Amino acid sequence: MANKSSVVDAECTAKVPIPAEKPFLKTFKSNLKETFFPDDPFRMFKAQSLKQRIILGLQYLIPILQWLPNYNLDFFKSDIVAGITIASLAVPQGISYANLASLPPLVGLYTNFVPALVYAVMGSSKDLAIGNVAVASILFSDMLGKVVSPIDSPREYLSLVFTATFFAGIIEASLGFLRLGFLIDLLSHATIVGFMGGVAVTVCLQQLKGLLGLTHFTHKTDVVSVLHSTFAQTHESNRKPAVFWINAMAPLTSVILGTLLVYFTHAENHGVRVIGHLNKGLNPLSLTDLAFGSPHLSTAFKTGAITAIVVMAEGVAVGRSFAMCKNYHVDGNKEMIAFGLMNIVGSCTSCYLTTGIFSRTAVNFNAGCKTAMSNIVMAIAVMVTLLCLTPLFHYTPLVVLSSIIINAMLGLIKYEEVFHLWKVDKFDFVISMSSFFGVVFANVETGLTIGVTLSLLRLVLIVARPKTFVLGNLPNTMVYRSTEQYQCAQTVAGILILQIEGPICFASSNYLRERVTRWIHEEEDRIKSSGGLSLQYVILDVGGVGCVDTSGISVLEEVKKLIERKSMKLVLANPGNELMKKMYLSKCIEEFGQEGIYPTVAEAVNACTLMLQMNLNPGEVNGDRHNNV
Amino acid sequence: MANKSSVVDAECTAKVPIPAEKPFLKTFKSNLKETFFPDDPFRMFKAQSLKQRIILGLQYLIPILQWLPNYNLDFFKSDIVAGITIASLAVPQGISYANLASLPPLVGLYTNFVPALVYAVMGSSKDLAIGNVAVASILFSDMLGKVVSPIDSPREYLSLVFTATFFAGIIEASLGFLRLGFLIDLLSHATIVGFMGGVAVTVCLQQLKGLLGLTHFTHKTDVVSVLHSTFAQTHESNRKPAVFWINAMAPLTSVILGTLLVYFTHAENHGVRVIGHLNKGLNPLSLTDLAFGSPHLSTAFKTGAITAIVVMAEGVAVGRSFAMCKNYHVDGNKEMIAFGLMNIVGSCTSCYLTTGIFSRTAVNFNAGCKTAMSNIVMAIAVMVTLLCLTPLFHYTPLVVLSSIIINAMLGLIKYEEVFHLWKVDKFDFVISMSSFFGVVFANVETGLTIGVTLSLLRLVLIVARPKTFVLGNLPNTMVYRSTEQYQCAQTVAGILILQIEGPICFASSNYLRERVTRWIHEEEDRIKSSGGLSLQYVILDVGGVGCVDTSGISVLEEVKKLIERKSMKLVLANPGNELMKKMYLSKCIEEFGQEGIYPTVAEAVNACTLMLQMNLNPGEVNGDRHNNV
Repeated sequence: MANKSSVVDAECTAKVPIPAEKPFLKTFKSNLKETFFPDDPFRMFKAQSLKQRIILGLQYLIPILQWLPNYNLDFFKSDIVAGITIASLAVPQGISYANLASLPPLVGLYTNFVPALVYAVMGSSKDLAIGNVAVASILFSDMLGKVVSPIDSPREYLSLVFTATFFAGIIEASLGFLRLGFLIDLLSHATIVGFMGGVAVTVCLQQLKGLLGLTHFTHKTDVVSVLHSTFAQTHESNRKPAVFWINAMAPLTSVILGTLLVYFTHAENHGVRVIGHLNKGLNPLSLTDLAFGSPHLSTAFKTGAITAIVVMAEGVAVGRSFAMCKNYHVDGNKEMIAFGLMNIVGSCTSCYLTTGIFSRTAVNFNAGCKTAMSNIVMAIAVMVTLLCLTPLFHYTPLVVLSSIIINAMLGLIKYEEVFHLWKVDKFDFVISMSSFFGVVFANVETGLTIGVTLSLLRLVLIVARPKTFVLGNLPNTMVYRSTEQYQCAQTVAGILILQIEGPICFASSNYLRERVTRWIHEEEDRIKSSGGLSLQYVILDVGGVGCVDTSGISVLEEVKKLIERKSMKLVLANPGNELMKKMYLSKCIEEFGQEGIYPTVAEAVNACTLMLQMNLNPGEVNGDRHNNV
Repeated sequence: MANKSSVVDAECTAKVPIPAEKPFLKTFKSNLKETFFPDDPFRMFKAQSLKQRIILGLQYLIPILQWLPNYNLDFFKSDIVAGITIASLAVPQGISYANLASLPPLVGLYTNFVPALVYAVMGSSKDLAIGNVAVASILFSDMLGKVVSPIDSPREYLSLVFTATFFAGIIEASLGFLRLGFLIDLLSHATIVGFMGGVAVTVCLQQLKGLLGLTHFTHKTDVVSVLHSTFAQTHESNRKPAVFWINAMAPLTSVILGTLLVYFTHAENHGVRVIGHLNKGLNPLSLTDLAFGSPHLSTAFKTGAITAIVVMAEGVAVGRSFAMCKNYHVDGNKEMIAFGLMNIVGSCTSCYLTTGIFSRTAVNFNAGCKTAMSNIVMAIAVMVTLLCLTPLFHYTPLVVLSSIIINAMLGLIKYEEVFHLWKVDKFDFVISMSSFFGVVFANVETGLTIGVTLSLLRLVLIVARPKTFVLGNLPNTMVYRSTEQYQCAQTVAGILILQIEGPICFASSNYLRERVTRWIHEEEDRIKSSGGLSLQYVILDVGGVGCVDTSGISVLEEVKKLIERKSMKLVLANPGNELMKKMYLSKCIEEFGQEGIYPTVAEAVNACTLMLQMNLNPGEVNGDRHNNV
């Protein structure tokens, strides 16, 4: 079975090797690569000519150069269908969410035009659909609306929105460029589920207030409730094509029906609020609107930062999920750069924050999209709307927009996922619910802060409280497992075998010292009460210890001293490369010596058992040593 | 060898048990205990009568009730010698550090009286010596001196100092009471070494300015330089009694010599600044001075909080180190409560921040202290000084105080430790140096923030980047080890064995998916170039995975899907209790089934090898299965 040349070294299990010294720079480079480039994207560059490398490099940086050369008519047919479908969502949703952000409806349309084009050039996902989202809209409206009123100073408010979008883009692109995407991983799925659920509930309640103001128009309410109940199905309709098409067509259909209803009944003269006049024409440049001199610049920056982090986490996760389904790979950091450029360019062309939207991407996926061309098709459809079709929205009742928002929000209240969290991991459930209640009862920033803080606290606890177990021997084997997990595992007389699973570093060293001491005390108490061979050896299985720092080495030495004061001996089993290296560099290894370190628990137990027998029967040398097979 | 009754279950290695469901409350209680009471201090309460429990409880809460009943004359003799010795340090150092904090010298004396008495009642360490410290003094002077000038408004400044001390005490006591001491562990030793070194350098430079202002008095400079060079020995003189006594007596001796010199030469008339008149009398109450109505209350709170955290980490660490030497245990959280009470009571009796001081504790230890009575003796000596001896300090030159400070500071510049950090763990070295430069080139808050941030970043990286290894078989054994660590480990044809060491949670799940995928790609590339059996099985050794959450379960399922798309199979080896439980609750375990999970890597390899052979030679059933011994 061996792949390497068979150098059978029967002695090679006798000693744990001390790792050879590598030059510091080499180790540093390797660590940097592990941290920032775990997927090794430059693997493909090996063994290529310079010209090839330039081409591959350009294709890596600008993904459209990768898929466009291989584009064909079949792809185009699929992408056209998908693009038109998501455009039918983009137009009503774009206007609705802009309303949520206290922005003019036209800005909602603009926002679904330019950013999608930028993404088609720079983005890695074949399925992601781009547009403005409810979460970002409500965050902007909340945080910016506090410092500048969108009703009293709409021009200034619009400026701040574009400025916040610009900052969001800068932050997204910077994080992506610096390969700091792993920081976004800290926003766990549990946090996002709770946070989004809270935002959804908040938005629904807000929208319902508007809706309920129309209760005396029974037929309006009926239409609304009919539409509402039709849309109260879940959006997770990947497996039900009929439901899928109903859901996909629903927003546009309701807009058309609502507009026709108002037009023919002249309901706008009876108090039904409508969108009103919309200018024709494409996105005006908004470079001059960027309010860098504004006194509210710091608020714009903070808003952009917080919103960017939330939508980026979602957008990258959406791209990855669909890439998994279609079996291709999406680099999170590259996506972040694409999102960043989308928003930077968007902020200069009258667009506000955009990202990848889950529900729209699901529609795009189910409608059969093949490449990011679907976003270009959608953008062109929006362009046509802007150039020719805006008068059609004159009579569209705002209540239809509310129902579109509510429908989308209901899809964000993922009670099944929350129940799954409760079942599988209660800490995740607590994080999720805390985030939810923070959003609902305080505000979105509070909810997000609570979620992130609890997640960080969980990380700290993971590192600060490594798991420890008592190991016992599985009968008739050389295998040692946790006595808590395997009921049949039997402890060895006179020897306490402990396993440490986790890092021995500054955060955990005090805890480990106390915990190991306590294990020893408990074992001594047990022996005292039940009788039996007194404890003479403590074996620490450190195979699960991935990381050690100077505090960790210190605590190992302290524990050794504590154990030796009790006339016992400490033995290490299965130390990894990093632990061996640090022990060697700190000279700690000399205190353990050859009889203090073994590559397996079994060998350590054998050696200690032999010593025990020699101590019990000093005259005899017991040849009954277990053989290593 | 077996301790448990010999239920030899030859089959017990065949299956990994699914942990029995425990009531949530029981698990929650057990986790809380692990997190907050790792040393299980209530162990002694078992099997005790109610009266005994009350007595033990009181002794636990008020440590003096534990050692005072067993006090005897021998202890008292040792404690008197130690107490007088540390009092000879307390008086000059107390006045010097008060000077550093821009406080009147009397406050320095007050501060070495009351808090030591409180510690003697509430503290757990037998060796810890209490007093004011340079770090706290300079933090107060820096942070509070920014908002209120100690020269222009000394009364208001003093109020703020007492208020900050009060808040520090509240925070210390609260953290201790809530058993949140593990948060202080996050202030790693590397951070503290760098931070303290930076503070020491800053203080020395400040003091040297004062000293250099006297260069035209050659004999003064000579005396100073002579004293200075005498004291420039290291304080780490635990093994050199002669040097120890010189160092211990040096501050008081220099005060006496300096005072006599000024007195006889009337140097105070020639520009040498002296302490001047000090009132006789004990600590006045300062309750009314607590400035809760001040506009600078938030600064006082912030100062108290930051200072408390820094000195608490040091104080607890000092207590623990000496407890290790004398082989007794000190509960960090109880010490924090003691420090908190010390400062709360102190703030009401004209004392500012105090804590356990390393150098003074070393003197106490070497002078032979037996219990915290040494602190009471020291306090009484300071009381006598306050009541009778303050006129003696009238002619003490301030330059002597500066030299005392510089001498103490030099002991804080631990270049040997920094070199040790460089040798053993470069990340710790970077944290240390960043903290150092932050303090020296910016200010103390910046240095501390940098140190803590880098430490937290290290924690995040530990969790977000678990280690992964390729495992190979150690010849002639059933043992599988990392091929990187053991050169003789041989990989198995057709099977890729990966080990994951670290948590599979939200912070690491994306990374692990990318990394495992990359290992598979690299193995496929290697097989393609070198020829050999194509990869058909991937075995994940998850024995080192301590923590799993819902994101972790998701990523396991994703990796399984990815592997199955390549027509390979994923097998898990040695999952722990937590992983099995979460897989069971999330129904993920059904996807793996019995042929997907094994208790050891060896068994997994055996099973896969058998399947490989059956695939290669479908007609034959190969009976050559490795036996589990």
